[in-house]
Amino acid sequence: MSQQKRYFLPEDDIPRQWFNIAAVMPTKPLPPLNPKTRQPMTAEDLFPIFSEEVSRQEMNVTDEWIDIPEPVRDNYKNYRSTPLVRATGLEKALDTPAHIYFKNESVSPVGSHKLNSALAQAFYCKQQGVTNVTTETGAGQWGCALSYAAKIFGLEAAVYQVKISYNQKPYRRSIMQTFGAQVTASPSMSTRAGKDVLTRDPNNQGSLGTAISEAVELALSTPNCKYTLGSVLSHVTLHQTVIGLEAEKQMEMAGEYPDVVIACFGGGSNFGGVSFPFMRHNIKDGRKTRFIAAEPTSCPKLTRGVFQYDYGDVAGYTPLLPMFTLGHNFMPANIHAGGLRYHGAGTIVSQLLKDGLMEAADIRQLESFEAGLLFARSEGIIPAPESCHAIAATVREAKRCKEEGKSEVILFNLSGHGLIDMSAYDQYLSGSLQDYVVSDDEVAKNLSKIEKII
Amino acid sequence: MSQQKRYFLPEDDIPRQWFNIAAVMPTKPLPPLNPKTRQPMTAEDLFPIFSEEVSRQEMNVTDEWIDIPEPVRDNYKNYRSTPLVRATGLEKALDTPAHIYFKNESVSPVGSHKLNSALAQAFYCKQQGVTNVTTETGAGQWGCALSYAAKIFGLEAAVYQVKISYNQKPYRRSIMQTFGAQVTASPSMSTRAGKDVLTRDPNNQGSLGTAISEAVELALSTPNCKYTLGSVLSHVTLHQTVIGLEAEKQMEMAGEYPDVVIACFGGGSNFGGVSFPFMRHNIKDGRKTRFIAAEPTSCPKLTRGVFQYDYGDVAGYTPLLPMFTLGHNFMPANIHAGGLRYHGAGTIVSQLLKDGLMEAADIRQLESFEAGLLFARSEGIIPAPESCHAIAATVREAKRCKEEGKSEVILFNLSGHGLIDMSAYDQYLSGSLQDYVVSDDEVAKNLSKIEKII
Repeated sequence: MSQQKRYFLPEDDIPRQWFNIAAVMPTKPLPPLNPKTRQPMTAEDLFPIFSEEVSRQEMNVTDEWIDIPEPVRDNYKNYRSTPLVRATGLEKALDTPAHIYFKNESVSPVGSHKLNSALAQAFYCKQQGVTNVTTETGAGQWGCALSYAAKIFGLEAAVYQVKISYNQKPYRRSIMQTFGAQVTASPSMSTRAGKDVLTRDPNNQGSLGTAISEAVELALSTPNCKYTLGSVLSHVTLHQTVIGLEAEKQMEMAGEYPDVVIACFGGGSNFGGVSFPFMRHNIKDGRKTRFIAAEPTSCPKLTRGVFQYDYGDVAGYTPLLPMFTLGHNFMPANIHAGGLRYHGAGTIVSQLLKDGLMEAADIRQLESFEAGLLFARSEGIIPAPESCHAIAATVREAKRCKEEGKSEVILFNLSGHGLIDMSAYDQYLSGSLQDYVVSDDEVAKNLSKIEKII
Repeated sequence: MSQQKRYFLPEDDIPRQWFNIAAVMPTKPLPPLNPKTRQPMTAEDLFPIFSEEVSRQEMNVTDEWIDIPEPVRDNYKNYRSTPLVRATGLEKALDTPAHIYFKNESVSPVGSHKLNSALAQAFYCKQQGVTNVTTETGAGQWGCALSYAAKIFGLEAAVYQVKISYNQKPYRRSIMQTFGAQVTASPSMSTRAGKDVLTRDPNNQGSLGTAISEAVELALSTPNCKYTLGSVLSHVTLHQTVIGLEAEKQMEMAGEYPDVVIACFGGGSNFGGVSFPFMRHNIKDGRKTRFIAAEPTSCPKLTRGVFQYDYGDVAGYTPLLPMFTLGHNFMPANIHAGGLRYHGAGTIVSQLLKDGLMEAADIRQLESFEAGLLFARSEGIIPAPESCHAIAATVREAKRCKEEGKSEVILFNLSGHGLIDMSAYDQYLSGSLQDYVVSDDEVAKNLSKIEKII
């Protein structure tokens, strides 16, 4: 590795608007349904849970561009533009004719892309006079981002962290506390949803689905408190499009345009964030870029799930969302990529996958760390376990390019660094890490429990 | 906190030369002595241990500017210039009229300034045909940097990590291993120096002094293997002047010049790195900037040690160096700022302190974390425990400015981030962290053991 080619934007070129793909989709996503009435929901129906502005953004399928508020953009400028990097070291290690680029979102103060939406969500709460925010977090990337954003805009933050991560990854808990947040292991005895789980199963180690239920319950039962979410929902992905919009301008600086865009996939926000700005050129200008969502074999909703209305959480507090899902009771294996352990996909991404506008690849845990290690040693950045999935999919494509003798341009999103996840690398290096592939029986069992609404 | 003012240099302005303060010092540092003959050493005497080029740099007291090799500068460009940031959030939190700036070295791929010298040392080894490098590390910042640099230049790296850190901070060990280095807990049974310690004290938890002995012994007993060091020596500080040289240009962009420059102090390389380029204007142009080295009260060599010839390591393998020291057998308390747990100061800094060209401040552990937490919450970056000492000294100066009603300009070096040190913050937040102040008796006892050569 010698000098990397890195592309930055002048401050003036940092986007002033987010891109709302829903406005240009050939088939609009189906609406969320009220879990009780089964009627389509309006933005107003979401006001009790979310800030009013993100509620409106969530339901907005008409405005292609949505202004980024100046205080949010000012805070973006503290770490954006993030670098677009030509991964020449990785290309050399793979001896591939492909041109590999990555967008490095790990340079944010919290180490991941999550801050792009946390700042927006915290700002809209503050603007509306909200004093307290709550959320859930798995491995902790989102919780750290929200804690930071809450501190910046002067809000109190309460975070429910999935218990197994709370205990196994104490560093991210400490980061949240350092930024002043109150962190509770979920399931907890402080909510009805948590008690329901713990009284049935006192040793339950938690899941994102349960933690969401707890956070939503807290928001609904606390005056002047709103819930925030780190992925899945359309407004979160909207905020993340700042990634792809920057990348588009930076690829232009590099004189290239991607043939393939790749990101890891948990709920879809980092995937949509980097993809959608390029996908609009497929939709509007006839471009033929491929978009690949890299999900773990242990939680394969895109490759093996079904398209159905399902809940976003275990307790069924959330609206019913039209999504590729494994069933809201699906309990994924405890892989290190905690951010990918979620049963469902966002509504927009689900519709796009259904309509053939994107693809999905399933990645085994060992393959992901093999790719992550290769990347660390060839590019000098240790990727988050989640991001390792995007790198593994990139390696697959780069090898295909070699076999086919093609110099395709591949762009992937490095969603975060892995400095807080070193115990995972430790296990990989010592040979004690294993693959988890969900059995057909377990998938079928969970899918059979989903109520058929469409 | 809203938009921070951040200053970056255009690529062309990244320094092409390091600044060698020895060439302009009013009193040149005394020479290192051969531990056996007690005669002044030459560069050639260091060749068995170090690469030839850094051996020459170590003894160079005549050339004010030394060229940065292009391959090193190319790698600098992968993370440099590092941002100079106006800490408006911290200023507001302290309600001080002072203008506070910090140089953010935490953005390097290994999270600290250490890479600035690791790249240079690894390059010079490679250039000379060396295949293996070895070193010691405490908390692991230097070990990570050397492991990364060795990987970049195609060298095998073996790192002795102080045992207590090896066990308490496994993340940095994993980072080194992820970059391909072999990491051994020190004291180990693989060297004579290690065995000597372990047979006397089987539960010995290690110290930098012992780990240095082990690494030097390995280098001396292995063909084509050189030793590298992360601080203390003059050539290491030379490489770090890239920090201050950049900061000088960036302060100019901000239209300011520092009245006070502050850095934490372990061996002196990050302190010298940010300070010396500004200190040359005190020496040559009559500027009156103050320079403050912030050391822990648990290892107070600058504020309570003596100026004497002493060894750099426990076993006495290194040259005798003229330094402020607490005695090479001094065993510092186990504070979290592992990088500051070293008994002596570099020869140049020692001479400068003796001559009144700089000052030192001693910081208690709790004061350091109080300042670090304030910084994290007002600037959004969690500082390394070492850097917390610089921030605490900055807070003292900013408070003085408020009392005196002065708008002085304070610049401190943020040597690294604390994301791998969250257990320390955890202890601080839970109230279980304590202060360590060395007793007068212990200082006197150790000092009485130092042989008086000058």
